[in-house]
Amino acid sequence: MQVVVPYAARDPKSRLADVLDADERRTFARAMRADVLDAVRAAGGAPTLLTTAPVASGAADGLGGVPVVVDDRPLTDAVNDALPDEPGETVAVVMADLALATPESLSRLFETPGEVAVAPGRGGGTNALVVRHLDFRVDYHGASYRDHRRIAAEAGLSVGVVDSMRLATDVDEPADLAEVLVHGEGRACDWLADAGFEVTVREGRVGVARSDG
Amino acid sequence: MQVVVPYAARDPKSRLADVLDADERRTFARAMRADVLDAVRAAGGAPTLLTTAPVASGAADGLGGVPVVVDDRPLTDAVNDALPDEPGETVAVVMADLALATPESLSRLFETPGEVAVAPGRGGGTNALVVRHLDFRVDYHGASYRDHRRIAAEAGLSVGVVDSMRLATDVDEPADLAEVLVHGEGRACDWLADAGFEVTVREGRVGVARSDG
Repeated sequence: MQVVVPYAARDPKSRLADVLDADERRTFARAMRADVLDAVRAAGGAPTLLTTAPVASGAADGLGGVPVVVDDRPLTDAVNDALPDEPGETVAVVMADLALATPESLSRLFETPGEVAVAPGRGGGTNALVVRHLDFRVDYHGASYRDHRRIAAEAGLSVGVVDSMRLATDVDEPADLAEVLVHGEGRACDWLADAGFEVTVREGRVGVARSDG
Repeated sequence: MQVVVPYAARDPKSRLADVLDADERRTFARAMRADVLDAVRAAGGAPTLLTTAPVASGAADGLGGVPVVVDDRPLTDAVNDALPDEPGETVAVVMADLALATPESLSRLFETPGEVAVAPGRGGGTNALVVRHLDFRVDYHGASYRDHRRIAAEAGLSVGVVDSMRLATDVDEPADLAEVLVHGEGRACDWLADAGFEVTVREGRVGVARSDG
């Protein structure tokens, strides 16, 4: 399956600025991206990186052999240009910050029936999609999960939904780092641990703290 | 399958106090509990309500025919008393605030292999469990997902994990109400809508607002 992996190359993960500086956010975003690319390949997908600006290419970033398309337009426009343009074509879209994605969770998505299959994200978003019909178009503005269901319904397309915590977890905010530390299995989790982050529990709530080391 | 549904009857959902008054929180908590009981039954489970204080019983609350056990001890102690005490027995534990639980998601949990099967919750918690061995004991204090994995490992027990956004979503904080409005299908979602809550999108983030009506 063709799998487009959108990546925001400029100032990635800005909502982590309280806990990571700009260089660290870039490194962490690359680690998550490499984990996603690895998981896509292990699930049998053929990834293409769709990036807003040129990226350094190389096997160390999981980019060895991965086609890179640079498109600096907004996400919605860039993804819509990558969707199927011939009958019978299938394209999946998997965000580059799904640090908990595993081959198993992506396989479940890829195998979810429907002319459109959706992995909802926390907070009403759409973290991954499989598009099997020409008439579907994305709109990532706003609460995109409901919008994508509406767009599919208006086009008369069947929709499948994959119920996955791993695919629902995009990493945007400091609280999300705890999810990576608890459930992660790849480079992003290792990088956070090496950077001194660990899970904390305070008043029954889980967060992260960073050691001075 | 025997399914214990723990319910905190005193001042339920206190972290929703900013958006719901005490009476509303009780009503909303009962609606979530009824949704969970319905989903458990539809998944083939036989629920028992494990409550910290007596509750009004009745079919309108989904409690018709449901055994009620009152145990005012901390959650960990009360649940441990309900776990298997004979070889071959299986007991599931499903929290009463899993407003997105469906028969399908609970069936996946019930069918997940392992002497212990776990549905992790957001923030390192444990939202649901299936216990198929005498040697497992729960500890809900702190980041319980990791603790439960450790407890199982120390007892030499196999652990299965079910990857479900629906089971990972316990409803504790105002932001969680957006998840109920977007993905809910039962009484809790209906109650929120009737109470005037709707999903809002501000600066790309989803939240909830309440109309004055």
